[in-house]
Amino acid sequence: MRPIRVSRRGREAPPSPIRKLVPLADEARRRGVAVHGLNIGQPDLVTPPIVWEALDRDRPKVVAYAPSNGTPELRAALARYYHTAGIDYSADELTVTIGGSEAILMAMASVTDAGDEILVPEPFYANYLGFARMLELKIVPVPTSAVDGYHLPPASVWEERISARTRAILFANPGNPTGTVYEAKEMDLLVELASRWGLFLIADEVYREFCYDGRTHLSIANFESVRDRAIVVDSVSKRFSLCGARIGCLATKNADVLSASLRIGQARLSPPVLEQTLACAAFTLPPSYFEGIRAQYQHRRDVVMEELAEMPGVFCRTPRGAFYVLATLPIASSEDFASWMLSSFSHEGETTFVAPGGGFYATAGAGSAEVRIAYVFEEVALRRALRVLSAGLAAYPGRTAEAALVARG
Amino acid sequence: MRPIRVSRRGREAPPSPIRKLVPLADEARRRGVAVHGLNIGQPDLVTPPIVWEALDRDRPKVVAYAPSNGTPELRAALARYYHTAGIDYSADELTVTIGGSEAILMAMASVTDAGDEILVPEPFYANYLGFARMLELKIVPVPTSAVDGYHLPPASVWEERISARTRAILFANPGNPTGTVYEAKEMDLLVELASRWGLFLIADEVYREFCYDGRTHLSIANFESVRDRAIVVDSVSKRFSLCGARIGCLATKNADVLSASLRIGQARLSPPVLEQTLACAAFTLPPSYFEGIRAQYQHRRDVVMEELAEMPGVFCRTPRGAFYVLATLPIASSEDFASWMLSSFSHEGETTFVAPGGGFYATAGAGSAEVRIAYVFEEVALRRALRVLSAGLAAYPGRTAEAALVARG
Repeated sequence: MRPIRVSRRGREAPPSPIRKLVPLADEARRRGVAVHGLNIGQPDLVTPPIVWEALDRDRPKVVAYAPSNGTPELRAALARYYHTAGIDYSADELTVTIGGSEAILMAMASVTDAGDEILVPEPFYANYLGFARMLELKIVPVPTSAVDGYHLPPASVWEERISARTRAILFANPGNPTGTVYEAKEMDLLVELASRWGLFLIADEVYREFCYDGRTHLSIANFESVRDRAIVVDSVSKRFSLCGARIGCLATKNADVLSASLRIGQARLSPPVLEQTLACAAFTLPPSYFEGIRAQYQHRRDVVMEELAEMPGVFCRTPRGAFYVLATLPIASSEDFASWMLSSFSHEGETTFVAPGGGFYATAGAGSAEVRIAYVFEEVALRRALRVLSAGLAAYPGRTAEAALVARG
Repeated sequence: MRPIRVSRRGREAPPSPIRKLVPLADEARRRGVAVHGLNIGQPDLVTPPIVWEALDRDRPKVVAYAPSNGTPELRAALARYYHTAGIDYSADELTVTIGGSEAILMAMASVTDAGDEILVPEPFYANYLGFARMLELKIVPVPTSAVDGYHLPPASVWEERISARTRAILFANPGNPTGTVYEAKEMDLLVELASRWGLFLIADEVYREFCYDGRTHLSIANFESVRDRAIVVDSVSKRFSLCGARIGCLATKNADVLSASLRIGQARLSPPVLEQTLACAAFTLPPSYFEGIRAQYQHRRDVVMEELAEMPGVFCRTPRGAFYVLATLPIASSEDFASWMLSSFSHEGETTFVAPGGGFYATAGAGSAEVRIAYVFEEVALRRALRVLSAGLAAYPGRTAEAALVARG
């Protein structure tokens, strides 16, 4: 009998850096330790009750397939939402996807073949690596630095990394894990690079509403000169505390990409139907809903910054969006530190779970002093989690004198 | 400004043969023609009401991410279901997927790299081609013939097609679009090929309960000698009339494949959560539920065969499972025929929508005289749809004298 072996892509599919320490957290809980989970971007906000009313009203007799590109109702709701947000995408210029995740997969598949390359400012949302591995494309990291808040480097740094196989720039704005909101000159740089080098611009804008301190989000959709090459990745997950619904969309004015996403979507038949009903209802919420959650998250951001400022040797510039802080700690290995916090530390019966920074980098060894903190709890719980983190940091045997800030690029 | 172009996989992603004529059907409806949709496997059966009770009871405050491999409750329910079905998979040997579709994608990705090959008995479920195109693997068709009811050819036909890049055999049992249920000697052949040539066996068993005339379904899971290389693709869609829920699973005793599917699953975070609650509830239905739907579909199968027997020049062996008939019609192009039925024909204000056979073949030109009929309506509606089809066939200008039966292989 011949032996059998999984594929290289099966062997090399990266584990989620956000989830791979979950077994240690489970073990800690079994030992009776309370674990503050700042590792994952799962908001504590109650899902708006209006979504349930919609489901009670529209409960189907047969839970049948929906159209592959989403129900007409949800596509219309998305188009209305974009209109209100000042973004010009019609119902015919978008495909409903199974979460923002599938929109990333479809965008990547539509613009690359195996062996092609995509430029991504680093650090970046870890799961880009998983989809890239499955599709056998190469993510080429473009370094940014903690010192200047992970803003984009000049054109020369990008151009050094452009090859004949480069097909696109993929970026999250606001950024995950950085919380960075790109300024006009950074958007202009991306637009210019895409125009000059013939690249698609895939913009992950799932945190669009989460911009603080009066910052305005600049959608790639509104840059006229790249209308033909802009692809927006979107999701209802964070926006409406509907993470488990798995509803997102891909929006673009490029008819070929739209057609490709529709055909790719036909292979998996349809997005889940009940959740499309929930999402439709969520999009009827007034703009004041976003104002409320924005104020809440901005306050939490302030709480995190205040607590981090109290911790000796910790460095972090104030993030302006999303709900993450990527903090540089006085440690050599955040993987070791995060594991140690779960397996060997507790403070008054509690510990704090943070995501090691390395998983957000493609560059080997980068991010080893950084951890991502998701500020997804209300103030009291958040302060408590951060004080436990601070106590852990003080007690950690691998502690160094201060945050090792390596300016990259 | 440099021009921009989608990828080859974006350009070549195949449209669904089941869905691509939908615009013609929509147009017919706009003209006031009633369209009998026999093109798609969307059962008319009411989703068991028990699923709604579960959702009302377990309505979450926050629609949060579930574990990437599914909720513990659903994994336990699946394990119990397998136990009852006489299949030995524990809750730790399966990953909950977004429909059977994602289980196919995960299985393919786990066993092939770009350029690798998978053998598939032809005709086959059309969407295998879509996932194969995205993953840049090659589907190598193994011909079967309408004349003998699409049963498997002997080992020599398979071995002629095995190369150094062959990684797996993928097959649906019961078959879609053929309705063929494999006999013990066919399963033995697959097992022997996989053992001799070092191949995975990916078995799409989503129609497991839909076997008629007392036929027993033989799950690949129960062949001891290939426990290390069997991968089962499963779904609640047809089983519980939950097509729109998008809940399925991948089950295997191969720890590396299981690990790969979990890591691939982490990239897309989680399957939809409400639908996992629905699926859990559906699995509490007693075995009599399956007996009821099996009897119902067997009767519908009889109705279809009776009606087809009345149509001059039509050929079809009695299918023994699933809810499809692949019928060979006295026509040269089923694509042209199906389009003509929608755009140029009506009988007493009605027409019938069938899926052209060509989309279920990778071999160019094959299946051009075949159409797939899904018997997803109750008797009266089904008879009516088939009589309208018969009238269309009689009136069709491209009609030939009789079904052109090409024995392949």
